Amino acid sequence: MAHDPNCIFCKIISGEIPSAKVYENEDVYAFLDISQNTKGHTLVIPKEHTKDIYDLTPDTAANLFRAVPRIATAVRDAFDPIGLNLLNNNGEFAGQSVFHYHIHILPRYGKGDGFGAVWHSHESDYSNEDRENIAHQISNKLS
Amino acid sequence: MAHDPNCIFCKIISGEIPSAKVYENEDVYAFLDISQNTKGHTLVIPKEHTKDIYDLTPDTAANLFRAVPRIATAVRDAFDPIGLNLLNNNGEFAGQSVFHYHIHILPRYGKGDGFGAVWHSHESDYSNEDRENIAHQISNKLS
Ligand SMILES: [Zn+2]
Ligand SMILES: [Zn+2]
Ligand SMILES: [Zn+2]
Ligand SMILES: [Zn+2]
Repeated sequence: MAHDPNCIFCKIISGEIPSAKVYENEDVYAFLDISQNTKGHTLVIPKEHTKDIYDLTPDTAANLFRAVPRIATAVRDAFDPIGLNLLNNNGEFAGQSVFHYHIHILPRYGKGDGFGAVWHSHESDYSNEDRENIAHQISNKLS
Repeated sequence: MAHDPNCIFCKIISGEIPSAKVYENEDVYAFLDISQNTKGHTLVIPKEHTKDIYDLTPDTAANLFRAVPRIATAVRDAFDPIGLNLLNNNGEFAGQSVFHYHIHILPRYGKGDGFGAVWHSHESDYSNEDRENIAHQISNKLS
């Protein structure tokens, strides 16, 4: 299991830095985000030091997400939120501040609860043909 | 594989409703979100009809997320964004409008690009003891 001695999340996994632990298995560690944007705000991270989504191997990704439904359900059962978001930020502009991959579990309680999405559709800017072209540009990179 | 005959995403998987397909394997289907909040905005969904994160089995979750790093990397390689967010909405209040589980891949290009997070920390509202209590309330639901 690769660790980065300067990574705050690797230090949380090893216990060198304390955390409010929610769950742990062989591959995954889950603990409260210190910011508690919403009550129960939890981070789920791979034990393997992995920088971001591009750096996740398929197996590390699978083992990580395998645990998420159960943890999200426990957050729901504990606090009875009216909704729940998962968020993952990659790159500083997208909001990433710790460069050890993490998924935010954000239970939702109502307007002004500490999280929300800015959501602007550009549907009318594109034709079906435009969308076909965009899809092909992506799928071409998958081969 | 469970399908819901009234579900728009099940109809997209079967081809009954057209989509701009990005990727497909035995377990997963990926296609452009028609809203294209940001250019390359892609949805990754399990072929198994699954309502939300609480309804995902561990295996369906693992098989779904196993494919996400590769698709996200292809989006990055196609459009060279400055960041990338993953978002999943559960429940109407959290922004879910189609009740077939889906992960949004949102490449980011700069301010006003069509997506953003409203992010308000409540760190100062809680003591370490408060956070320990919250973590225990969640982990108690995991047993
Ligand atoms: Zn680390
Ligand atoms: Zn974060
Ligand atoms: Zn469906
Ligand atoms: Zn959605």
